[in-house]
Amino acid sequence: MARSALVEALGRGLPADRLVVDPDVLSALSHDQAAWAPAGAAAVALRPRTEAEVQHAVRTCAELGVPVVTRGAGTGLSGGANAVDGCLVLDLSRMDRVLDVDSEDLTARVQPGVVNDDLKACVAEHGLWYPPDPASAPWSTIGGNVATNAGGLCCLKYGVTRDYVLGLRAVVGGPAGYGTAVALGHRTNKGVAGYDMTGLLVGSEGTLGVVTEVTLRLRPALVGTPRTVVGAFDSLVDAGRAVALATRRGLVPSALELLDRVCLQAVEDWKHLGLEADAAALLLARVDTPGQAGDDEAQALADCFTAEGALWAERSTDAEEAEALFAARRLAFPALERLSPVLTEDVCVPRSRLPAMLAQVVEIGQRHDVRIATIAHAGDGNLHPLLLVPAGDEAARAAAQTAFEELLDAALALGGTVTGEHGVGLLKRGGLARELDPGSLLLQRAVKDALDPAGLFNPGKVLPVRE
Amino acid sequence: MARSALVEALGRGLPADRLVVDPDVLSALSHDQAAWAPAGAAAVALRPRTEAEVQHAVRTCAELGVPVVTRGAGTGLSGGANAVDGCLVLDLSRMDRVLDVDSEDLTARVQPGVVNDDLKACVAEHGLWYPPDPASAPWSTIGGNVATNAGGLCCLKYGVTRDYVLGLRAVVGGPAGYGTAVALGHRTNKGVAGYDMTGLLVGSEGTLGVVTEVTLRLRPALVGTPRTVVGAFDSLVDAGRAVALATRRGLVPSALELLDRVCLQAVEDWKHLGLEADAAALLLARVDTPGQAGDDEAQALADCFTAEGALWAERSTDAEEAEALFAARRLAFPALERLSPVLTEDVCVPRSRLPAMLAQVVEIGQRHDVRIATIAHAGDGNLHPLLLVPAGDEAARAAAQTAFEELLDAALALGGTVTGEHGVGLLKRGGLARELDPGSLLLQRAVKDALDPAGLFNPGKVLPVRE
Repeated sequence: MARSALVEALGRGLPADRLVVDPDVLSALSHDQAAWAPAGAAAVALRPRTEAEVQHAVRTCAELGVPVVTRGAGTGLSGGANAVDGCLVLDLSRMDRVLDVDSEDLTARVQPGVVNDDLKACVAEHGLWYPPDPASAPWSTIGGNVATNAGGLCCLKYGVTRDYVLGLRAVVGGPAGYGTAVALGHRTNKGVAGYDMTGLLVGSEGTLGVVTEVTLRLRPALVGTPRTVVGAFDSLVDAGRAVALATRRGLVPSALELLDRVCLQAVEDWKHLGLEADAAALLLARVDTPGQAGDDEAQALADCFTAEGALWAERSTDAEEAEALFAARRLAFPALERLSPVLTEDVCVPRSRLPAMLAQVVEIGQRHDVRIATIAHAGDGNLHPLLLVPAGDEAARAAAQTAFEELLDAALALGGTVTGEHGVGLLKRGGLARELDPGSLLLQRAVKDALDPAGLFNPGKVLPVRE
Repeated sequence: MARSALVEALGRGLPADRLVVDPDVLSALSHDQAAWAPAGAAAVALRPRTEAEVQHAVRTCAELGVPVVTRGAGTGLSGGANAVDGCLVLDLSRMDRVLDVDSEDLTARVQPGVVNDDLKACVAEHGLWYPPDPASAPWSTIGGNVATNAGGLCCLKYGVTRDYVLGLRAVVGGPAGYGTAVALGHRTNKGVAGYDMTGLLVGSEGTLGVVTEVTLRLRPALVGTPRTVVGAFDSLVDAGRAVALATRRGLVPSALELLDRVCLQAVEDWKHLGLEADAAALLLARVDTPGQAGDDEAQALADCFTAEGALWAERSTDAEEAEALFAARRLAFPALERLSPVLTEDVCVPRSRLPAMLAQVVEIGQRHDVRIATIAHAGDGNLHPLLLVPAGDEAARAAAQTAFEELLDAALALGGTVTGEHGVGLLKRGGLARELDPGSLLLQRAVKDALDPAGLFNPGKVLPVRE
């Protein structure tokens, strides 16, 4: 359809600043941070301020048969927010208000464009805490976190985004008519009235509708300073063994992260935090249990590290050093991205299989001569091997692509999943088809077709476009 | 269709002991514990031992157009497992094996007929813990818990059934063909590969398929003896205020229960546990945080009780007394059922509204002259007002029915839900329609129709039968 007719229909009744037609801005809004995922050419972008504006956009697109690709900050790593040809990009980053923080019921009601760290700061003023902490928290939005069911560091102890979403408002299509706004879920602590449509929309990557408001569960702010335990290993696999031992012994720290030498070096070269980057891998744990029980837990973690051959393991007594280590963890991805294009893995394996998966990472990298930097939410068995490829080197790129798929297969062979927290987007569609039971895929397809019969919401993401 | 043809087709290739045609047994299998919910006349019941037998049953029923009503122990309180006329009752209570307990990955794989407390005992031998603890735990099955997304006492701190279900196997219909067995979800700690079909089936009350296997997340066993804090109040509303204050102060005990005088008296008359039943309400809290932090938390709870006017509040130092109090909580429902037919409410309100909801319970009971005994998972804002009606008194029954619906409306007016943990079944269908956004109901209908187009799985439960 003619782009001008779409622009005109969208613009009808909207303030002029809502539409984006400038090719450079449009191009910037047409992809997320998955450098290797293909992006189509969007027809136009819209930056709505209200749910009514989203309804107008969805209704207009449905009338004209135009796909709707929703995005927040664009920090995704699977291509889930990448434009498809001729689509409307719906950029929700300006719907960024915290509508309500309720310190009596421990809930917050927010628009989808609120940045994760901004929400954290806002609720902290009320003595409250919103736990989910993807490494992108300084930039990524709650809407994007909801779309991918984002995890992070502290989900080992405190759960993932879905665990905190009590209810949603969304603009949907299908049975209710495209452009209908619906309220889903509840704001009570428990509720089983009907199917869990809220949980279904969480993690659906914008393929079932557009989330316009989120009601979140909060927790009381943590008290006291968490303890940090660090262990250095001369092999990745030993570090994995130490994590498996900690799981087996029933330890549940609030974070248990792994960084390999390549990551540490990249961060140190960039930020000069004073990190020692001579070990093959560091394990980095945080313990927030109060009192003596927390001290005991920290010691028990250090004991696990030592038992599996750590070069050294110690409780950090220096708050500044501890902060630098967690900063290094958060900065690892951007630090590596500075060096070369990065193909990001996100496999997750049963926790006992972490050592085996780390061995596979090493083996596959060596076999294909691909440089792999590994960060991992190790306590969850969730690994992010980052495949580094010199820009413009097509042979290296092809090798990395092969290694990428082999890593997915290795995770599946160990009883794991192709995506622990980043989502399927475009990069994991093949892996998804290999992971899921064919019957399960048919059920997913049926749900998509029932809720989006015209196939307008983020087509081709998660599931292939229907033939 | 002819019952004999159904029995013959079901029996083909199955051992003879699987089918139930005896009218008395069939009648006992045709309803749950919701005394007031209507039950139809089942054609036959089947007690399968394997998934293949479930597949055979579903396939046969689909061929003959016979509805399938699945049940476990029949401890439900909403009529969700009640037979419909001419149906097959699929009784999964003999699929009761714990298939696997993995102490390295902290998971268990179980058949749906395993009794909750039996699973708890089994995993305890491995130093592990399955938290969800509905009051029916000594009798109810994991399959039934999954069907209703059962809660319980400790979900205030540890979450509900859905939080523990990593994956399922189910026999489904629709797009995959009736009788297809599918694997859903994952056994990793995190996973976002595709839509959350597992979470969708949890709480769907058998209306989307038959769950044949459940993979559960476990936790390390708790160490140490929990503390018990008890407070007595001379008004229900004051007890509610104390709970709201505890929430506001960020306290998260592992249980925070309320029992009113009628409940205490009924249990004491039955079991002679030595309970003092002279206060209007008791609050009963359990704190399992280890060490000094736990002692502080227990004291902080007692302070909340005192601040809101408790007659007395104390930390129980007598383990036997503490056990008797929690036993009273668990026995309250059967103790009341001994006295007269009980119509069970299950409303849940935002936690700050608990005092207002308790005031409504008193007011509505008085206005309709209905005797109401109240137990509540007070910390969750989840109340179970139990409406007691002398057997055979039709006027009292009508009054109770009116009060029941008014309680639902009162909860909705306070921002609550008509069911916190028991499910919709038959008793809450009207309430569900009043609670849910019309658009949300359309989405739920679309999901049901997509996954069960023939309407064979537990028709008329949760959603009305399609016209």
